Amino acid sequence: MSLQNTRILFVKRPFGLFEPSETFKIVKVPVPSQNDLSDGQILVKNYYLSLDPAMRGIMNNVRSYTPPLAINELMRGYTVGGWQEYAVSDGNGVEKLFPPPKSSLCDYLGLFGITGLTAYFGLLDGKLKAGETVVVSGAAGATGSVVGQIAKIKGARVIGIAGSPDKCAWIVDELGFDVALNYRDPDFPKKLAQATPNYIDVYFDNVGGDILNLCLKRIARYARIVLCGAISQYNEENYKGPSNYITLIAQRGRMEGFIVYDYQDRFPEAISDLSKWLQQGKLKRRDFIVDGLENAPQALLKLFKGENTGKMLIKIANEYENVGKDYQLK
Amino acid sequence: MSLQNTRILFVKRPFGLFEPSETFKIVKVPVPSQNDLSDGQILVKNYYLSLDPAMRGIMNNVRSYTPPLAINELMRGYTVGGWQEYAVSDGNGVEKLFPPPKSSLCDYLGLFGITGLTAYFGLLDGKLKAGETVVVSGAAGATGSVVGQIAKIKGARVIGIAGSPDKCAWIVDELGFDVALNYRDPDFPKKLAQATPNYIDVYFDNVGGDILNLCLKRIARYARIVLCGAISQYNEENYKGPSNYITLIAQRGRMEGFIVYDYQDRFPEAISDLSKWLQQGKLKRRDFIVDGLENAPQALLKLFKGENTGKMLIKIANEYENVGKDYQLK
Repeated sequence: MSLQNTRILFVKRPFGLFEPSETFKIVKVPVPSQNDLSDGQILVKNYYLSLDPAMRGIMNNVRSYTPPLAINELMRGYTVGGWQEYAVSDGNGVEKLFPPPKSSLCDYLGLFGITGLTAYFGLLDGKLKAGETVVVSGAAGATGSVVGQIAKIKGARVIGIAGSPDKCAWIVDELGFDVALNYRDPDFPKKLAQATPNYIDVYFDNVGGDILNLCLKRIARYARIVLCGAISQYNEENYKGPSNYITLIAQRGRMEGFIVYDYQDRFPEAISDLSKWLQQGKLKRRDFIVDGLENAPQALLKLFKGENTGKMLIKIANEYENVGKDYQLK
Repeated sequence: MSLQNTRILFVKRPFGLFEPSETFKIVKVPVPSQNDLSDGQILVKNYYLSLDPAMRGIMNNVRSYTPPLAINELMRGYTVGGWQEYAVSDGNGVEKLFPPPKSSLCDYLGLFGITGLTAYFGLLDGKLKAGETVVVSGAAGATGSVVGQIAKIKGARVIGIAGSPDKCAWIVDELGFDVALNYRDPDFPKKLAQATPNYIDVYFDNVGGDILNLCLKRIARYARIVLCGAISQYNEENYKGPSNYITLIAQRGRMEGFIVYDYQDRFPEAISDLSKWLQQGKLKRRDFIVDGLENAPQALLKLFKGENTGKMLIKIANEYENVGKDYQLK
């Protein structure tokens, strides 16, 4: 019997919260044999799959920075070639990795991947100055946790917003945030005001919704709001608009969206900084690993429920299993 | 009998739409005589009063760029010293005016005043490039009408949004906008989409609410939204938040508030440009003049109902009445 390739297809466009078993379909097909490959093609075995909030966005049929998923398309994701165990590649975009000291393969999907790079460029292009007050939501997530630590490295006062006491403890005790606020606390609005006596210079928004709205009310003059994501809204049938956007006028604030791909030329510079800080112990990260590709649909739902701390990954196979010392991963 | 000074006080903080007769109180007090003035003080006679949307904002007791009105405070407004016929001034901020050719005293409250300067700096700091698509709301108002004309001077394609067929005709036929759209037309969303086949590069927002939200949906990549005002919302008990702000992420758009006072050092440069364009016939404006200070409260309500085309002014007295050739007006 030939080796089987588990692949996960996107089969139904959801409206509102997606139901994993309806939205996705797990199929098994034979892995292409050596003879099936054309000249220049390589067979790639995936070890890890990154799960990201933006995966909800591509399920919608709307204009965005990347085309929406078509029905029955292989579900996309960071790795080579989407939600599947094996992929055939022509080598385009495939690069050999040399993980720096103290780093792991997983870091190429987290800290050195899209989430870490998003934190780096989103925050630093927000023109952060030492002594400023930075607030970041989704602060125990893959991006938010890195945002807060870079802000500390740059000399800012950092307030992280997260959704559980454990997450709050992690970002303060282990990552060195100045303050952590649990947005599920009924006194959260009051505590946010208390924690920002000089108002907010930079708000890095990963969540949208009520938290964005409360932070807008607290912006300082010339504040920058970095719009990175809106995970609280992606599964809502109607997005909530921030009524306090009006504060942007009186405070001359700026709310700006960004997409990390615009910074592709500068990725090496960012990875060099991030890897230096990692080695110096100034930057920590945690991976939240779920075993087995077949659990990806359910795990994606957990990501939207905020059940992860740090970067959520699917472990597809053991590292280096059935391969030599050299490996390739996008 | 001594000369009487009509003054209009702010006497009750409104919630939602203000009721002119409850919000304001008209009082009459004697005009100070020559003997009442201290050394260095001057008695100012007001000819015109500017009515502006921002007047609703200062009625609310919230943090903003200028302190809120106190109860029983003289209602503020552009002229010297607020909503009254006469004011005593120590000369601070009073300047002698030399209206350039083709201009009038009223232009110092309109085209060369806060509304014209707001149009100038708001649009040009939006980094407008020739060939771009500019959309402006409140397009037949004092600011919007100037925004559209400056955008045309700079080589943009200009779409104006206004609230009546007459206003739409004025901005296209007389001011030279490329397209005018009536937002009360039930097909407005469809027509906005048709009028912006290459999407919107700069949206100059004077109104907020549904129009802001529709324009957000239509932004081009790297679009700039200039937040100038939100006249549709000032009298609402709760502001409407723009749910389509999320488009800012995918399109890397920027939404930025600004206050014209930040540009005070550059006012002379702007007035020089505006006056040059006025003389060249490239810039036109219309004043909407209501007679009599006592009609100011009711006229302010008309401003919020969109009954004016062009700059709304109160004529307090005939120009040069009871004064010599030199006059002073802030």
